[in-house]
Amino acid sequence: HNAFGCAKVLYDFSAEPGNNELSVKEGETITITNPNIGGGWIEAQNSRGDVGLVPEDYIERLSSACTCLTSGAEDDEWDDEWDDMKSTSGYPESESGDSGAIQRGGHASSMKISLNKRKILIYKNLVSVFGAQMGEVGPVWSYPTTQLDCVVADPKKGSKMYGLKSYIEYQVTPNTTNRPVNHRYKHFDWLYERLLDKYRSAIPIPSLPDKQVTGRFEEEFIKMRMERLQGWMTRMCRHPVISNSEVFQLFLSYKDERDWKTGKRKAEKDETVGMMIFSTIEPEGPDLDPLEVEQKCEQFSRFTKAMDDGVKEILTVGNEHWKRCTGPLPKEYQRIGKAFQNLSSVFTSSGYQGESTLTDAMTAAGKTYEEIALMVAEQPKKDLHFVMETNNEYKGLLGCFPDTIGFHKAAIDKVKEGDQLVATSKITPQDKTMMAKRVSVMSYALQAEMNHFHSNRIYDYNRVMQLYLEEQVKFYETIAAKLRQAHSQFTTM
Amino acid sequence: HNAFGCAKVLYDFSAEPGNNELSVKEGETITITNPNIGGGWIEAQNSRGDVGLVPEDYIERLSSACTCLTSGAEDDEWDDEWDDMKSTSGYPESESGDSGAIQRGGHASSMKISLNKRKILIYKNLVSVFGAQMGEVGPVWSYPTTQLDCVVADPKKGSKMYGLKSYIEYQVTPNTTNRPVNHRYKHFDWLYERLLDKYRSAIPIPSLPDKQVTGRFEEEFIKMRMERLQGWMTRMCRHPVISNSEVFQLFLSYKDERDWKTGKRKAEKDETVGMMIFSTIEPEGPDLDPLEVEQKCEQFSRFTKAMDDGVKEILTVGNEHWKRCTGPLPKEYQRIGKAFQNLSSVFTSSGYQGESTLTDAMTAAGKTYEEIALMVAEQPKKDLHFVMETNNEYKGLLGCFPDTIGFHKAAIDKVKEGDQLVATSKITPQDKTMMAKRVSVMSYALQAEMNHFHSNRIYDYNRVMQLYLEEQVKFYETIAAKLRQAHSQFTTM
Repeated sequence: HNAFGCAKVLYDFSAEPGNNELSVKEGETITITNPNIGGGWIEAQNSRGDVGLVPEDYIERLSSACTCLTSGAEDDEWDDEWDDMKSTSGYPESESGDSGAIQRGGHASSMKISLNKRKILIYKNLVSVFGAQMGEVGPVWSYPTTQLDCVVADPKKGSKMYGLKSYIEYQVTPNTTNRPVNHRYKHFDWLYERLLDKYRSAIPIPSLPDKQVTGRFEEEFIKMRMERLQGWMTRMCRHPVISNSEVFQLFLSYKDERDWKTGKRKAEKDETVGMMIFSTIEPEGPDLDPLEVEQKCEQFSRFTKAMDDGVKEILTVGNEHWKRCTGPLPKEYQRIGKAFQNLSSVFTSSGYQGESTLTDAMTAAGKTYEEIALMVAEQPKKDLHFVMETNNEYKGLLGCFPDTIGFHKAAIDKVKEGDQLVATSKITPQDKTMMAKRVSVMSYALQAEMNHFHSNRIYDYNRVMQLYLEEQVKFYETIAAKLRQAHSQFTTM
Repeated sequence: HNAFGCAKVLYDFSAEPGNNELSVKEGETITITNPNIGGGWIEAQNSRGDVGLVPEDYIERLSSACTCLTSGAEDDEWDDEWDDMKSTSGYPESESGDSGAIQRGGHASSMKISLNKRKILIYKNLVSVFGAQMGEVGPVWSYPTTQLDCVVADPKKGSKMYGLKSYIEYQVTPNTTNRPVNHRYKHFDWLYERLLDKYRSAIPIPSLPDKQVTGRFEEEFIKMRMERLQGWMTRMCRHPVISNSEVFQLFLSYKDERDWKTGKRKAEKDETVGMMIFSTIEPEGPDLDPLEVEQKCEQFSRFTKAMDDGVKEILTVGNEHWKRCTGPLPKEYQRIGKAFQNLSSVFTSSGYQGESTLTDAMTAAGKTYEEIALMVAEQPKKDLHFVMETNNEYKGLLGCFPDTIGFHKAAIDKVKEGDQLVATSKITPQDKTMMAKRVSVMSYALQAEMNHFHSNRIYDYNRVMQLYLEEQVKFYETIAAKLRQAHSQFTTM
């Protein structure tokens, strides 16, 4: 063809208008017209003669030297991430949802409550302090004035081992630096493990989207994972303690490979983990009444259990509705559409004059029902999807609470034993006072966490219900408009 | 209770507003406060103390003398009409549809074509003559300037044999006299038999709605039968030959019982039946070319076969859609509604302040989906029902055409043999000429009938599609409006 050779397109790419880009389809062969564009782009021409820019990562060169990237000697593999993929006709459900963090049981032993170790009694006003808003809802975290946020986007396929192994890198851009950093799924997983080690006794850390994400197509899989990583990161960014932590900041804004490696090693050696985290928390208020706290915890426990049931009900019903909307229902509308069109074409064959208005109108009505069939099948992706994602996320989050509440309960029980421990001289009265103080800190943290959960829940459900209903309104209005148009084609007699 | 005694309500009755009427439910016991209202009404009081008028026929007196009506010694019975009733979950389908008139095979033998009998060659300009509009569509019936029409309404239960047997009487009011006459189903059936005897060789007479009409409730059954009798009567009224016939006029406008009985006897002795009917038809135009006619017949045969398939497809698809709309689909919307409401009531139990806007909105959204469930379940009665009825009617009508076309084909074949019959001296050349002339009359009639069918078909499908789409538009618009209202209750954040 030409000096730069040809390439096979690996993934569909839709050109953005006005950007000199070229839309290409997976499997298409294109001719490279300029490989030296830079910035990850090449110029190419398709079989119809259109020329434009295509992302380098989306193609595989056919008749020039191998251009496979080689990255560092990282040991995870693209193949691993594709393990256990399966396809279902219903809504792709994350399997991690049921378990939450609690199934990462390997950590539990290192989290034992050791209230008689002195060092966790050293309070440090480090990153998070409690506000004193004890009025309406009780203890709350002190929130930053500007909310951290980030965008997870632009998944790119990389490869190593001379192209034998490939992986996906996501671009993560925080609103603080506005400078993108790249991370693979395994990096997110590493961050998750660090956060779990450090915060789980105070803050429920929701699981990452599972490795076993369902999706029949590579593109679909990548899109779904990216969306769920975005959801997870947004939730972490929203948390005032997590978002302010060193390890999280490192993840979002490391300067270069060296910076990342150094920060990584440091985070892995962090000793302020497990119960130690309470030493970094300084409540701004009087000690809390353990009895009152216990009641609040019990209420919250009941609440999370009830909400878990409610969320699961929505997921079950939603999944059934998803199946109906993408399966039998559009098929039926299509058959209705076909039946109208068939009768219309029979009418056309009547040989009777002057019925073209009727037959045209009936054909149009039939086509309208075929359009409705497509709309019905596509709709869940536009609305139900977000209801499902939000509830999936909450299912996971709710699964983490028993763990966090458990730590707290154990600490309270210990304090209750306090008098007996003093009487048997196992601890001093001073120790007992300190223990009570420590539990009070934990209670502050737990209640702040409950309130954080509630305010986020209200925000999230408000948002997702609004989005759902808005899209539903649009959906039904569009159908009504289409049918009105079809109706207008019949003659009024 | 009082001097006039009590009564048991036999059927639900909905009071018309502003008419002093009292709504009552089947099985309810009411107290009669005035039995002398007249006009088929009594005044009664229900258990809540409401007083109003109730139709006498809708109740059964409990503690006063038997008031059962005794009618003439007619031999049909209410019970007969209820034979073979069954319930289905789908659309109640008339079983007569498949057969059309052709299964009333008892008549076929008396319909043999007897072209060499002289008397049918006597043309009489009686009730129907052909117009001369040979331009656009060929022969057409001459239509009256004002279209006959009638209303079938007001079904009333009567009884005889001291209340042991009961029947339903329908009020039939033609637009000509505007005076109602009463007819039972068996009278309609009698009329049908007369029309079949008289016209079937020229005009396809669609079957009456079957005795085996499906319907779980008496009311539903009566309503459905009345609606179908109305449909049948409307079709008969629309036909210029039938509507003008003596027997049909008798049925619609007999003066009294004596008039009816006399007319009945006369109609049963009518000798202008079978092939004789062609002697009453006088085409206003030249004889038709048998070959051309044959082609048109074949085209029409193909058309009716194809339309029969198309109509059956719509009925099949419609029946499935009916089942889904009245079964699983509303159940699913109801479950969605319940799931939203359940989660909302969990949220209400959170103990967290200031989420009543969310919970109120979520409850409202849930209720909206329950309303949508009801709407979905009720909708088929408002739109799909009429599509089904029209197509059921056409299925029956199409089933009659092979019979009518068959008569015509046989006559044409006979004419084709004409030369041979003359050669073998079986008929005279004059006979042959007359035969050809007679067949030309039949061809006029058949083509007029085809054109009548086509123009009615265009009218009917235009009307039913318009009605269907109009109701569908309303349906989707109402849903959209309800969802918009639900959406507006969420706070914009």
